[in-house]
Amino acid sequence: MSLARQILNGDIRAASRLMRDIDDRIPSAMDALKELYPKTGNAYIIGITGPPGSGKSTLVDKMVDFFRKEGKTVGIVAVDPTSPFTGGAILGDRIRMQRHATDEGVFIRSLATRGCLGGLSRSTQDIVNVMDAMGKDIILVETVGVGQDEVEIVNTAHTSIVVLIPGLGDDIQAIKAGIIEIGDLFVINKCDREGTEKVERDLRMVLEMGRKREDGWEPAIFKTEAIQGKGIFELVYGIYRHKQAMEQGQALQKKLRERAKATFLEVLESEVMSRFIQKIEKDGGWETILEGLTKRETDPYSLAEKMMIEELKSH
Amino acid sequence: MSLARQILNGDIRAASRLMRDIDDRIPSAMDALKELYPKTGNAYIIGITGPPGSGKSTLVDKMVDFFRKEGKTVGIVAVDPTSPFTGGAILGDRIRMQRHATDEGVFIRSLATRGCLGGLSRSTQDIVNVMDAMGKDIILVETVGVGQDEVEIVNTAHTSIVVLIPGLGDDIQAIKAGIIEIGDLFVINKCDREGTEKVERDLRMVLEMGRKREDGWEPAIFKTEAIQGKGIFELVYGIYRHKQAMEQGQALQKKLRERAKATFLEVLESEVMSRFIQKIEKDGGWETILEGLTKRETDPYSLAEKMMIEELKSH
Repeated sequence: MSLARQILNGDIRAASRLMRDIDDRIPSAMDALKELYPKTGNAYIIGITGPPGSGKSTLVDKMVDFFRKEGKTVGIVAVDPTSPFTGGAILGDRIRMQRHATDEGVFIRSLATRGCLGGLSRSTQDIVNVMDAMGKDIILVETVGVGQDEVEIVNTAHTSIVVLIPGLGDDIQAIKAGIIEIGDLFVINKCDREGTEKVERDLRMVLEMGRKREDGWEPAIFKTEAIQGKGIFELVYGIYRHKQAMEQGQALQKKLRERAKATFLEVLESEVMSRFIQKIEKDGGWETILEGLTKRETDPYSLAEKMMIEELKSH
Repeated sequence: MSLARQILNGDIRAASRLMRDIDDRIPSAMDALKELYPKTGNAYIIGITGPPGSGKSTLVDKMVDFFRKEGKTVGIVAVDPTSPFTGGAILGDRIRMQRHATDEGVFIRSLATRGCLGGLSRSTQDIVNVMDAMGKDIILVETVGVGQDEVEIVNTAHTSIVVLIPGLGDDIQAIKAGIIEIGDLFVINKCDREGTEKVERDLRMVLEMGRKREDGWEPAIFKTEAIQGKGIFELVYGIYRHKQAMEQGQALQKKLRERAKATFLEVLESEVMSRFIQKIEKDGGWETILEGLTKRETDPYSLAEKMMIEELKSH
């Protein structure tokens, strides 16, 4: 029986195996992903991003409680760029999240950065697709959101949540460009701390100043204290409200298309690039190329163009 | 006279124009970059990364003072991912840095994320190459380092500096993987704050536990208080020491090759992908593709493979 078939039959270990293969970029993973794709499209994907230490994992943990009480199955993808700045928070909170690990209705997968090709965003899309095909009702993608990749990851979710905390910076004005575009919902976590009102006021002002969103949705702001579970119900309700609003207009359809496009481009990019790299390695490797580049006998721009012309058919 | 020629003749406005073209991905920028590349390879590139609010820009500002006093010309690339979490720090510090803007020996360029193709890393490489060809002795690349792209940017510098601050997280253990690989020098900035000793102790332990670096370099730790200029001399001296050590062994050669490879791959990737996208748009656009994907009549994996086979020559 194919790996994909096993996964569709509910084999958890097969799912874990495929996810490892995706991580390691084993070529056969593509076959399984192809077979699984027709079974995707039923999960509701929620992206959660915020700075290190903002309590994202605790929020996720509490939201999972809610979803589980409603009988929904949940997939969690915790994207953890191997970075010097994640602090201890992610690891600690991840361990805490493990209390859901004994719950069969919850599937947790951590994803770290590996190598440079394809990247985090591709792997995340693939793993979300596996969880979707597994029949998870809700998939939560948690990421430390400062890099471009991370922002893209959250951007392809159905509902994107941006987590802030009081005392982040003096001036929220500087952040308006990014904030308005990414967040459907905003959470001010650790709202028992000083500075909550200021963050909320600033955020509200920035949101009001921003241009109207095409989909007509007005981003909502929630205040939570995740450790004590404060404000989680309102947040989950907010997600449902956003989901409903999206389903009524054209917005959900648009999101689904964007998501499909992003996945397709990611796959195309990583497949094409690994073909080019294989070609280089077969043709005598990097030695000559790097020699020529470092000695300035050629330049990377001409070389890339030349290789492209040689490899691509002209129509 | 070509744009590249004008730049090589010292025309600052021509350089700014090319950098704008690079940002906007104007195809003619490639010609200028090709022409400039033979004149690159003389600048010493220093990457600086750290979390938002760690005082990177102030550090850069003070380091520039030092380099300028020694008669060196400086290029600064401030990479600013359009992100909700940069806080007010970058913008504020950037304005402060403008006091060097009237100094002809300093060229400052900010880079923000735009679109999804090619990305920040490609643009940064290109702009560093322009500054290199302009004859800048030292190029400082400053980036908020949480994302994968940002880490890659810093990784291609000759000397990589990782900035930390006291009180970042409870446990520096969690960050060891990333830290050891990226940093040649570590700076604990805001070292007059409580917790400095703990960060230093933890960092030292992590560095000692890590496997020995191939190049034999032992990462050094510096304590600074950038606003008051404390510790800057030691840091700059540390950079020179690292430069010297690199030049003696094979390490510099290796870095130069890695850098050339990274630039080449970035250029290849963005050029190839824009060719594919042009092809899709010429062939009737995204409509049919996205329709098929969202209706699950096809899947992104098969579609990417099919397109690749159609477009790539087989050898």
